[in-house]
Amino acid sequence: MARINENYLKLKAGYLFPEIGRRVAAYAAANPSAKIIRMGIGDVTEPLPAAVVEATHKAVDEMSRRETFRGYGPEQGYEFLREAIAKHDYQDRGATISADEIFVSDGSKCDGGNILDIFGPGRDDNRIAVCDPVYPIYVDTNVMAGHTGDADERGEYRGLVYMRATVENNFSPEIPKEKVDLVYLCFPNNPTGAIASRERLAQWVQYAKANDAIILFDAAYEAYITEPAIPHSIYEIPGGRDVAIEFRSFSKTAGFTGVRCAFTVVPKTVNGRTKDGTAVPLHKLWTRRHTTKFNSVAYIVQRGAAAVYSDAGKQQVRQLVQFYLENAKLIRESLSAIGLQAYGGVNAPYVWVKTPRAMTSWDAFDLLLSKANVVVTPGSGFGISGEGYFRISAFNSRANVEEALRRIRTALA
Amino acid sequence: MARINENYLKLKAGYLFPEIGRRVAAYAAANPSAKIIRMGIGDVTEPLPAAVVEATHKAVDEMSRRETFRGYGPEQGYEFLREAIAKHDYQDRGATISADEIFVSDGSKCDGGNILDIFGPGRDDNRIAVCDPVYPIYVDTNVMAGHTGDADERGEYRGLVYMRATVENNFSPEIPKEKVDLVYLCFPNNPTGAIASRERLAQWVQYAKANDAIILFDAAYEAYITEPAIPHSIYEIPGGRDVAIEFRSFSKTAGFTGVRCAFTVVPKTVNGRTKDGTAVPLHKLWTRRHTTKFNSVAYIVQRGAAAVYSDAGKQQVRQLVQFYLENAKLIRESLSAIGLQAYGGVNAPYVWVKTPRAMTSWDAFDLLLSKANVVVTPGSGFGISGEGYFRISAFNSRANVEEALRRIRTALA
Repeated sequence: MARINENYLKLKAGYLFPEIGRRVAAYAAANPSAKIIRMGIGDVTEPLPAAVVEATHKAVDEMSRRETFRGYGPEQGYEFLREAIAKHDYQDRGATISADEIFVSDGSKCDGGNILDIFGPGRDDNRIAVCDPVYPIYVDTNVMAGHTGDADERGEYRGLVYMRATVENNFSPEIPKEKVDLVYLCFPNNPTGAIASRERLAQWVQYAKANDAIILFDAAYEAYITEPAIPHSIYEIPGGRDVAIEFRSFSKTAGFTGVRCAFTVVPKTVNGRTKDGTAVPLHKLWTRRHTTKFNSVAYIVQRGAAAVYSDAGKQQVRQLVQFYLENAKLIRESLSAIGLQAYGGVNAPYVWVKTPRAMTSWDAFDLLLSKANVVVTPGSGFGISGEGYFRISAFNSRANVEEALRRIRTALA
Repeated sequence: MARINENYLKLKAGYLFPEIGRRVAAYAAANPSAKIIRMGIGDVTEPLPAAVVEATHKAVDEMSRRETFRGYGPEQGYEFLREAIAKHDYQDRGATISADEIFVSDGSKCDGGNILDIFGPGRDDNRIAVCDPVYPIYVDTNVMAGHTGDADERGEYRGLVYMRATVENNFSPEIPKEKVDLVYLCFPNNPTGAIASRERLAQWVQYAKANDAIILFDAAYEAYITEPAIPHSIYEIPGGRDVAIEFRSFSKTAGFTGVRCAFTVVPKTVNGRTKDGTAVPLHKLWTRRHTTKFNSVAYIVQRGAAAVYSDAGKQQVRQLVQFYLENAKLIRESLSAIGLQAYGGVNAPYVWVKTPRAMTSWDAFDLLLSKANVVVTPGSGFGISGEGYFRISAFNSRANVEEALRRIRTALA
């Protein structure tokens, strides 16, 4: 008989966003005239930058003529894109990353899960630390890979180390006292919008070096950093390239959530170890994984992504990010003005809001859905430390943001 | 310390195509004036069909305007594409497959590897059978997932069941006498170009039912079937939807190798089992895997793929396939005319050729590279039963095919 992967049966309930979708669909069906504004899932709303559109059209034309048609590309991505990434995202910021350390992918969510392929598959091979609240993918993919035990009564999986992000530590967890082997970090943070200072990231790099640990650094929101002192990459920290894998995406930067292009950086200097302690470059393992199980993204999409680094593209992306950041500012200020505690939204497209009157996250979700017809994301969906919070996404039109805030103010008055 | 997945260290040498690339690059560097014709890797050469180009441009325009912009799409793929697939590829052929059993992906190579996520991760959870010769991905992904032991001195991995495809069985392996749990089949076959008759597929379905096994059916080349009696899908066989997962691709059909769109069919009626024998629908597990670790392919690419099913698209794809099939015919007939044993190429874009004078596959590769400046794929790269054969791909311009055949005839004269 064909045996299934029983680790999947440990997964609690659905993934957060399908559950939100279910509740919204049920409400919409019962209230067909409701004009629901979605500020839940972090999905962009503004069109692709003109430079991206132009480059994509041009690439489609190339694909329509035999002389310029392209079949399989390099699995790691085209040189033109990897060179642009290495220069603009890293070298220009003083981080030593070369094009052959960059792997173009179809999403940082995807590779954030796929990366586990190259780490020890056994339940006890690695001690794994995640933040709480946390982007659910990090946890779920570890459960699916068999790196955890069952969930406890609070929904936390046995075997994982949860690092609490609370208002007391500005939603930037303390360096663990215990020894862990893999650490997931996401800054600017989803869902809290918190950032990590250069000093804090330096402590993380030091911790990883001292414990022979690997940092899995999700920098999908780096473009939203407005304060110049905050690092955009873990590789801006001395020693970062010896201990960290970084995930980046064009999704929230250039509006690529429906276009699918991202990249993973695996420096040649990061090593994992065999059971007997022999160092093995993760770059070699990831190259094998990536070339065997992936074929890169569409040529036309890579051309679009490369246009993000043109002068026009850079300016258009800056305007796009600025637009969403202004939304975030409106949200933060408007909710603060009615007495809510609102965090984030300065260096991130998310505002993290304490529920009023000590409501639970899902109660606040249901209240805002039914009274304001506004969809937010319940903080408890991101972990137990998210209970009593909700996340509002700044990805929307200005008109929708203003209307949603008017309705929320009325609903909570 | 961060422990790596040591199963990767069991992998023998590089993946076949990188090794070919290495030898070709070395030859080209030493012989810069050589006009090398590549008939090795199965990569299309003709431009995208006009209907696909038009639909893609239109979708890019939609993405450039706020009113028609699309962010995240459904992880399983857009309804418009899944409905078109279900109707044209299945229902119109009498196979009962519905749109919600189709999962749009970025490649059948990718999903052919990813599918292992939902099966028992343990070395002894499933007994796994592959054909020999075999598309290397099936084997390598099982090695990486820890489903095998080490390779033996012939390069075969302990724990896998190899089903021999030889000239004696028309390169369509016999049904195993022993019991296995997962069976990889690929028809029309890569690399041999062999097909499976309706009777043979019915035997496979019967075998799977009798042994509670799952068939992983790779039908990436079904569009090349010319003989009407040959099934295009395992689901054309009664009972097929109870035992099989099918992989399909637009790569070789509509020239999508550089566009990246494929799909995986997981009928709701296929069950795996837990250790205690409880049946679990694989559809449920794959939905969880797909929605957690994947975000579907670009909207613009899905629109392009859907255009394949328009009247114009269908006709253009038929012409494209016909063009490559004529190449295959030329190759087969030309090589037969100089006394080589050539198989396949009638219902597949590959011709499988016995090396002359009992040469090894790599010797024939090196000879054809150096004397004819033609790249073929050494049969031994696909497994030990491929030794003494090479594969020629029909994916090329007519001029290149004719020139390559002239040179091969001279080189082997």
